Amino acid sequence: MTIAVVGGTGDEGFALTLRLVRAGEDVIIGSRAEERGREAAGKAADLLELGSRGGTQGSVEGTSNEQAAATADVVFVTVPYAGQAEIYRSIRDAVRPDAVVCDTTTPLATAVGGRAWQVVRPWAGSAAEQAKAILPPGTRLVAGFHSVGAEPLGRLEQTVEGDVLLCGQDPEAKQVVGSFVEKIPNLRWVDAGPLAMARIAEPLTALLVSVNRTYRITGAGVTLTGHDRWGVPQAPDRG
Amino acid sequence: MTIAVVGGTGDEGFALTLRLVRAGEDVIIGSRAEERGREAAGKAADLLELGSRGGTQGSVEGTSNEQAAATADVVFVTVPYAGQAEIYRSIRDAVRPDAVVCDTTTPLATAVGGRAWQVVRPWAGSAAEQAKAILPPGTRLVAGFHSVGAEPLGRLEQTVEGDVLLCGQDPEAKQVVGSFVEKIPNLRWVDAGPLAMARIAEPLTALLVSVNRTYRITGAGVTLTGHDRWGVPQAPDRG
Repeated sequence: MTIAVVGGTGDEGFALTLRLVRAGEDVIIGSRAEERGREAAGKAADLLELGSRGGTQGSVEGTSNEQAAATADVVFVTVPYAGQAEIYRSIRDAVRPDAVVCDTTTPLATAVGGRAWQVVRPWAGSAAEQAKAILPPGTRLVAGFHSVGAEPLGRLEQTVEGDVLLCGQDPEAKQVVGSFVEKIPNLRWVDAGPLAMARIAEPLTALLVSVNRTYRITGAGVTLTGHDRWGVPQAPDRG
Repeated sequence: MTIAVVGGTGDEGFALTLRLVRAGEDVIIGSRAEERGREAAGKAADLLELGSRGGTQGSVEGTSNEQAAATADVVFVTVPYAGQAEIYRSIRDAVRPDAVVCDTTTPLATAVGGRAWQVVRPWAGSAAEQAKAILPPGTRLVAGFHSVGAEPLGRLEQTVEGDVLLCGQDPEAKQVVGSFVEKIPNLRWVDAGPLAMARIAEPLTALLVSVNRTYRITGAGVTLTGHDRWGVPQAPDRG
């Protein structure tokens, strides 16, 4: 499977790229400017010492967001909320109909001059639902990664601990994204329910920023208790 | 310190009462009807075998919400969102000016015929901020316990694992509530920031209900990663 990371030049997307390539995946970094995408890919290859460490790692390339989205089986979209709608409009015709799209946006109030421990409420309910409203009907959309900070994700010399809460209507799409989560050591995934649960999962980013700020730490994450004993997600009864 | 549990006849309040009394605390259960408060206290005393297990446990009494609130140093309010405003109006003149009040309400959509994995948005921003708007100015209000289910809390033969996220303007009030959290084995507390962070912490109840439903489990909770290494909360810089 080919993975695109739209907005992969940003902190979260770049860190995710590093983790996935290190896990053996082939990643295409997308950027608004093709050249910046290529630069980021070169930087990732250098950091991972691709080519000099044998065949255990994947590959990384860089291009425009549109081209990255067009070629990928799985598209991670890791962009700030202020630019999210515009980015989705720019890739909506490029995303393949069978692709899985994973939105990682949190509607932080920084988009409107507020603070990173505050959120705004998107008109659609959540940033993920805003993405859904822009993408073609039927797109296999998943929301996740809101509780995994760019900082611990990018600190490659340490494992990144935590649970990725995945929200979406399509259980198989959540499984696909979850399978990539599981390739990152110590990171697990949880099926948190339908896409609208992103209204609750997205603001966790801001809560974790508040905790980081209060304890003067970085990289607080979330795990759910008892996870080891749960088994696999089931189809819930009708709500 | 005397503890009141307003709404202590409900599942969450009753479970919290059991845990606190077992930890050696003196708890007064409050109910709308004084008699129901007394009945719940009798039931708690029976369950804990108070009197027959030596002096390691605390005590439990029952009365009306108003009387419970009037005598307590710390008042936990554990009521459904549909009745929350009315309960606060009924106790607002009774709560002592120096008391710490801990609101545990989540604005679940069940209050308006919706589902327990959905929330409504209170006018004040959160249920805790609604409580603040009703209580006298200066009341030392803390919000917490949203991610600790009544079911695991009440299962006394097992420890209840998780982090209680405490939100509030008064760091010392959070310490007071946190000190009671720490009396419950395996439960820890986190200073999650100002009271408005309850807008994010409260809906976690609904997210955990969604996870419970998806995995057909009960009692999923939340812990934050790295907590052991954090030290004590600091006064944050101005927002």
